[in-house]
Amino acid sequence: MPIPIDADYARQLDRQDVLARFRDEFVIVDPDLIYLDGNSLGQLPKRCISRMREAVDRQWGERLIRAWGDGWFGAPRRIGSKIAELLGAAADEVIVADSTSVNLFKLVMAALQARPGRTRVVTDELNFPSDLYVLRGALRLAGADYRLEVARANDGMSVSVDTLAGLIDERTALLTLSHTAFKSGYVHDMAEVTELAHRAGALMLWDLSHSIGAMPLSLDEASVDLAVGCTYKYLNGGPGAPAFLYVRRDLQQRLVNPIWGWFGQRAPFDFGLEYEPAAGIAHFLTGTPATLSLLAIEPGVELLLEAGLSRLREKSVQQTEYLIGLWEALLQPLGFTLNSPRDSNRRGSHVSFGHPDGWRIDRALIEEMKVLPDFRYPDNIRFGIAPIYTSFAEIHEAVRRLVAVMTERRYEKYSIERVGVT
Amino acid sequence: MPIPIDADYARQLDRQDVLARFRDEFVIVDPDLIYLDGNSLGQLPKRCISRMREAVDRQWGERLIRAWGDGWFGAPRRIGSKIAELLGAAADEVIVADSTSVNLFKLVMAALQARPGRTRVVTDELNFPSDLYVLRGALRLAGADYRLEVARANDGMSVSVDTLAGLIDERTALLTLSHTAFKSGYVHDMAEVTELAHRAGALMLWDLSHSIGAMPLSLDEASVDLAVGCTYKYLNGGPGAPAFLYVRRDLQQRLVNPIWGWFGQRAPFDFGLEYEPAAGIAHFLTGTPATLSLLAIEPGVELLLEAGLSRLREKSVQQTEYLIGLWEALLQPLGFTLNSPRDSNRRGSHVSFGHPDGWRIDRALIEEMKVLPDFRYPDNIRFGIAPIYTSFAEIHEAVRRLVAVMTERRYEKYSIERVGVT
Repeated sequence: MPIPIDADYARQLDRQDVLARFRDEFVIVDPDLIYLDGNSLGQLPKRCISRMREAVDRQWGERLIRAWGDGWFGAPRRIGSKIAELLGAAADEVIVADSTSVNLFKLVMAALQARPGRTRVVTDELNFPSDLYVLRGALRLAGADYRLEVARANDGMSVSVDTLAGLIDERTALLTLSHTAFKSGYVHDMAEVTELAHRAGALMLWDLSHSIGAMPLSLDEASVDLAVGCTYKYLNGGPGAPAFLYVRRDLQQRLVNPIWGWFGQRAPFDFGLEYEPAAGIAHFLTGTPATLSLLAIEPGVELLLEAGLSRLREKSVQQTEYLIGLWEALLQPLGFTLNSPRDSNRRGSHVSFGHPDGWRIDRALIEEMKVLPDFRYPDNIRFGIAPIYTSFAEIHEAVRRLVAVMTERRYEKYSIERVGVT
Repeated sequence: MPIPIDADYARQLDRQDVLARFRDEFVIVDPDLIYLDGNSLGQLPKRCISRMREAVDRQWGERLIRAWGDGWFGAPRRIGSKIAELLGAAADEVIVADSTSVNLFKLVMAALQARPGRTRVVTDELNFPSDLYVLRGALRLAGADYRLEVARANDGMSVSVDTLAGLIDERTALLTLSHTAFKSGYVHDMAEVTELAHRAGALMLWDLSHSIGAMPLSLDEASVDLAVGCTYKYLNGGPGAPAFLYVRRDLQQRLVNPIWGWFGQRAPFDFGLEYEPAAGIAHFLTGTPATLSLLAIEPGVELLLEAGLSRLREKSVQQTEYLIGLWEALLQPLGFTLNSPRDSNRRGSHVSFGHPDGWRIDRALIEEMKVLPDFRYPDNIRFGIAPIYTSFAEIHEAVRRLVAVMTERRYEKYSIERVGVT
């Protein structure tokens, strides 16, 4: 049954939205700007403004070095334990440290050492290219025997368990995937895929960057071994905020962080010349954390916990379904393809549309229509829905403006050459 | 000739100080608090407050994802090029990324690969314990043949070139040292030690964390190969601010960053599945930088450039000499030893005093006297002088209060057990 395409229907959905009040928790300066890139950089929580004032003016400015004892030292674990709630993990299984890439490197090197004799790492081409770079660099360090196997996408947007199963055997040390694919939004079945890795004796490492904050996760229930993810997308932690890292409790003492440093040392203020790893998850820390960026994460995480992941997921599914309904009615006739899964059980919180003129259309949306989506090479316009602040009216209006770009042929004046960064 | 020990003399020195006006550039809330820990966490520049408001409220809050194109993407290189001026390096030889420890790991792994067949890394026991941890972790990864040689301190506070020379031979891949020792403040002769490494065919890597911002440096002139350092000490970049990394231009293409990531990729927005390193220093980047912490570095670096490193060094030497003069007159008689070099050519910008009751004296200074020094196990009280904001009057007053702690035996009520963190 086609959905109503009028704006009133969108407003009606907003009135029924039990999470609507959370939109007021975010800084929205220009109500006419439609921000659909929260899966790249989440919006600024109002609470974060005061929290950063406190961190800069009072903690750094007044408390100075004493602020370390007041709460800075504990921040990687404190914020990690809050993120753990979003992951379905125990508080002592998650820590915040470094970037996603550096954390991935740490866990991949640790995993390879924990599976001696196994020289294969399996991933898929839906994974972040950046993760593939980290993997290739890590395997180069590990030795000439090591190899990365990259599962191909079945239909350009998903990779089945069978395809993965075909690459996994007794040589596999590690299977590592993005849980939600950055481009198509395809979501792997965490429990099933993790079990596949375990059956072959391999470890399982998930990159949760595009999942966390948009859907409930159950790392412990699925017996996931390792995970990393970023905090500046649906977590709204600010540009390049430090990443999180999960190691299942029973693996924490068996795995060795390859990048030793004083924050991972048992007694850093003894200044001993030998490294003794701290117990538990803490030895996956390395150097002094980028504390201002770290503290900026906390308000966004707290907001997600207040909103509740089940309700956020419910709204996210309703919103992506609504957007796909509008696509069917209004965008498909204009030549847009749906580059995301139709099945909401296998779809994250963003929806990708393909068009041969995708790049120019994206430029027109940004430059003339005050719509900020994201673009992924070569022809993919990505509408990221952050259920904690995205409204149904915004989705409706974004589609209306996209239709206007097409019918008024506004994209034609833009060069087909991509320039700069988006 | 003994120095005048009266407060008037200190005030007279302050009146003659050509850098005195820079103190007003920093947030000093309590004029009675004497902060002598700028070599651990530098004070907050007033300009940083507005810069952080701009970064959070306007760039993140209003510009959102567009802020990446506005200036965030360029920040690691832009701020790196300013830091390069402080290092005596070219603008394209320095970049800001990750933590000092992660950068050290990157450069050590790169150096080992650039010197195949050489299995020794040489350092000394004056180096940061954290650097030793990184080195031990890196050598463990490199293989069972690899070994770390740690030169012993001659007198507990310095390591001579001859001592280092005794450990360096044709097996040495890398010599790596802290230029200014964190505990004693001993400063290695950069040119002479670098030449020593080069004569043996080894690479030279300096940790400049306790030097940068306190003295002029001449990395290019000394033909230094590699350097890292932190930005939150004399650079006043804020807690755990991202670190810098220097690679001499002619080495940039020959060395391989072991932690590959999209910020080090030639064309990150092509999202290609193969890693192609960016040209020049940029391929030593890995993941998305912790941008709020990164941007906080810039105002402090600008202030140092305005003040001028030669003038800062001149004042720093004058101030450490003054402090040592006061020690001679007032502290030595109370049982304090000077644990820093007497020769100002071999001394950085902090001075360490030893005392068997050091820990309790340090507690009394902090808890009762509003003096914030630093303490380094087992008995070392460290007075850090940041010439850009430390006044002579503060140095005089800190010594006066330290004398009061001793004569009034105020330290006796504190436990000899260390608790918590300082």
